[in-house]
Amino acid sequence: MTSVDLNADLGEGFGVWTLGDDDAMLDIVTSANVACGFHAGDPANLAAVCRAAAKRGVRVGAQVSYRDLAGFGRRFIDVSSEDLTADVMYQIGALQALARAAGTAVSYVKPHGALYNSIVTNRHQAQAVADAVHAVDPSLPVLGLAGSVFFGAADELGLRTVPEAFADRAYRPDGQLVSRRERNSVLHDVDEIADRVISMVTKGRVDAVDGSTIPVTVSSVCVHGDSPGAVQIATAVRARLVDAGVTLTPFS
Amino acid sequence: MTSVDLNADLGEGFGVWTLGDDDAMLDIVTSANVACGFHAGDPANLAAVCRAAAKRGVRVGAQVSYRDLAGFGRRFIDVSSEDLTADVMYQIGALQALARAAGTAVSYVKPHGALYNSIVTNRHQAQAVADAVHAVDPSLPVLGLAGSVFFGAADELGLRTVPEAFADRAYRPDGQLVSRRERNSVLHDVDEIADRVISMVTKGRVDAVDGSTIPVTVSSVCVHGDSPGAVQIATAVRARLVDAGVTLTPFS
Amino acid sequence: MTSVDLNADLGEGFGVWTLGDDDAMLDIVTSANVACGFHAGDPANLAAVCRAAAKRGVRVGAQVSYRDLAGFGRRFIDVSSEDLTADVMYQIGALQALARAAGTAVSYVKPHGALYNSIVTNRHQAQAVADAVHAVDPSLPVLGLAGSVFFGAADELGLRTVPEAFADRAYRPDGQLVSRRERNSVLHDVDEIADRVISMVTKGRVDAVDGSTIPVTVSSVCVHGDSPGAVQIATAVRARLVDAGVTLTPFS
Amino acid sequence: MTSVDLNADLGEGFGVWTLGDDDAMLDIVTSANVACGFHAGDPANLAAVCRAAAKRGVRVGAQVSYRDLAGFGRRFIDVSSEDLTADVMYQIGALQALARAAGTAVSYVKPHGALYNSIVTNRHQAQAVADAVHAVDPSLPVLGLAGSVFFGAADELGLRTVPEAFADRAYRPDGQLVSRRERNSVLHDVDEIADRVISMVTKGRVDAVDGSTIPVTVSSVCVHGDSPGAVQIATAVRARLVDAGVTLTPFS
Repeated sequence: MTSVDLNADLGEGFGVWTLGDDDAMLDIVTSANVACGFHAGDPANLAAVCRAAAKRGVRVGAQVSYRDLAGFGRRFIDVSSEDLTADVMYQIGALQALARAAGTAVSYVKPHGALYNSIVTNRHQAQAVADAVHAVDPSLPVLGLAGSVFFGAADELGLRTVPEAFADRAYRPDGQLVSRRERNSVLHDVDEIADRVISMVTKGRVDAVDGSTIPVTVSSVCVHGDSPGAVQIATAVRARLVDAGVTLTPFS
Repeated sequence: MTSVDLNADLGEGFGVWTLGDDDAMLDIVTSANVACGFHAGDPANLAAVCRAAAKRGVRVGAQVSYRDLAGFGRRFIDVSSEDLTADVMYQIGALQALARAAGTAVSYVKPHGALYNSIVTNRHQAQAVADAVHAVDPSLPVLGLAGSVFFGAADELGLRTVPEAFADRAYRPDGQLVSRRERNSVLHDVDEIADRVISMVTKGRVDAVDGSTIPVTVSSVCVHGDSPGAVQIATAVRARLVDAGVTLTPFS
Repeated sequence: MTSVDLNADLGEGFGVWTLGDDDAMLDIVTSANVACGFHAGDPANLAAVCRAAAKRGVRVGAQVSYRDLAGFGRRFIDVSSEDLTADVMYQIGALQALARAAGTAVSYVKPHGALYNSIVTNRHQAQAVADAVHAVDPSLPVLGLAGSVFFGAADELGLRTVPEAFADRAYRPDGQLVSRRERNSVLHDVDEIADRVISMVTKGRVDAVDGSTIPVTVSSVCVHGDSPGAVQIATAVRARLVDAGVTLTPFS
Repeated sequence: MTSVDLNADLGEGFGVWTLGDDDAMLDIVTSANVACGFHAGDPANLAAVCRAAAKRGVRVGAQVSYRDLAGFGRRFIDVSSEDLTADVMYQIGALQALARAAGTAVSYVKPHGALYNSIVTNRHQAQAVADAVHAVDPSLPVLGLAGSVFFGAADELGLRTVPEAFADRAYRPDGQLVSRRERNSVLHDVDEIADRVISMVTKGRVDAVDGSTIPVTVSSVCVHGDSPGAVQIATAVRARLVDAGVTLTPFS
């Protein structure tokens, strides 16, 4: 029987500011990528998200980022290896304390935004993030993009790498994501998105932008919750997976 | 045989900015109150201090603060209990990760600056800090002022409270510190400071500002290292304690 | 013929985060209290609000605050006079540049949140804010609470003080606002709020919480826009004022 | 008779943290590049530097930066044009207010650190900075590197561009600076540095790293003050220029 994990970004408000509907998403996902304060997430808000996740049995991961509240971690920063490793360790540790106090624990690490994109190819930053995870807890899996330089660095350190697929993103024939700067990089049709997820999860394949069908390895599917439309899509994806007999459960 | 702990604030630079001579102080103290990033301390700097402390066998404590880089944590902030508890948990956890990666651990918690002063009397903030320590790890001792509301709250939660004395501060007849706003609140003469520390540690008493002699309970002595003069005083205090046959060792 | 100014807080998002409906409010108010980056407001957002205000002929004021993004400027900070004066000058100047580039100008200053409340009674902070406005431009009026220590300090410096009334707040018999910590401090009924504003603006009086009728001097009425309900109230207040023949225009 | 401007970075502390000896440098330079709070410089410190510069007749310029206190503005950030333009306007305006209150004015703009380096070649960021200066005040000159993309963008907007030379940096045969990542990019010998400055200022030429002699256009010479050695070099450069009969005066 097939099973898959659903993950989404949560805890991405700051102080009075909110982003997305954390409560709605906690009813949909099995893993919550909780912000750690560097791109979003004040401690009180993060503590509340950890408690809500613990209550529902949703797993908590540390969504680590560049230090960039003003840019929401979406801007590449040419940070040194030493600083990046320490910044990531700091963030993981901070969320570990909040998670522990909430009766749960940080179970994995997923880089956010521009850092996620950078370490697909940037060797020294990829190594710095992998080093940080390994230094904090070598048993922590990392969630990311199959084939990334980051996964290579993590593999070498003996970290477990968990490949994720994106429900609403177009794929190139080589298995990489179509850049957001190109048209048609993001899908919007609920049914089409749900169909693709079913295909990826149950058949291990997806249609690329050139019409070819390519293989994908999916341990987790990333859905978004930062708009009412996004929550609707995530809800549909979950429902279709359940209908298809797929068990939704945190990656093992 | 008498023994005592010597503690000082360390890791209080930020980015390119430095404060005090961390290396010199690590050769003097037995416990390092390491900043946690809210009043000072970028992660890379904190990681380096943790490694240096681990190398020398100096114990690491979490020096938690209000969120106030611009004010160095020296300004009272009327923060809510919920925010303060989460802010303190976040800081302890962040330093725990850095300390663990450095081969050591956070062994105690000491509030910094305006927070330290506030929770001598402010009940809801004192409770919030004690709650945070308890939630992260109820076996963590707290370092602070005997008789403070904070120690009362910590006691009730079953936290171990470790009273400290200040090498260079004048005491009132009731055992509290003379406010920094008053003249003669801070001592500057090296010999006088060393004499007082010897008296506090070996006899359990000190002369108050009115000339009376009062009892003090001292498990740790706080010294400063934020100026060349301060390092000189700390060095003298250590030397005099050693000469007096006092063993310098982390509080048990 | 009676005229009055309507003011509201705008530009209070930060980065990806938004707060309230700035566009809707710009169609309602005659003066926009634009955040200056210390409690809210990233520069690009502030520039956009200034441009939108300029386009509609809505006047721009500098909404200055404590440095406290995490607390949205709602927490008292015991900042020194020297720091507060410089912080306020810095904020006014920053918004002046953005306003000028948008084809408008900063026409007044209104303190925000905890700072607004503090300087009703706190002498040294009140003086520090008044000094800052005076140093930047002594022709800048300040918007605030009649009878506040802040207005006293501003008066002495020769600054013009513009008293405002709050559409949705209950008043004490002495003309001060009922504290938000008390029940019934904030009104929620649209018709009641509109009635009170009409009374304050056209008759110069309002019913206090004890049932007595008290005089109020109103050059500007403060409305809120941080929730759909708030925008609805502001819309109703404006409509009722127009129906009553009151001209809505920036304070002269 | 030859004259030249001497410029240095000032006001680069933050809160309790200091960097360099601002007072010493104000006795040496004719133009002070004062930080604006984004890479360094709390408002109270900046106000004090403006007052000290005004007292000595040293001109004040706005040293604008990426928003990056933790990295001191030394890390490239891939910020959008819209954000960068607004960030630079915000910084210039903030310093304008502080300078005006100090009895002086912002007389030019000089980008700092990674932003300075980025806009030598990065077209959209160079344009964004030039747009910001032009929008705030088209009469403000910009200080920077001759031949940079930034100067091209500034020229097109009609801004005055003031080329500077670096006292202690090695030059390539094409007139660009040798990267700091290469050995011998920075000179340390006081006499050699002073000789080069004399040659650049009085003869308009300097020896490049390959031994060739190249022409340089110098309206201002940048000296550093962030270490005791740097102050010593700056002092020697000034003395040698005076001995050579060069008038030290702000660029006209």
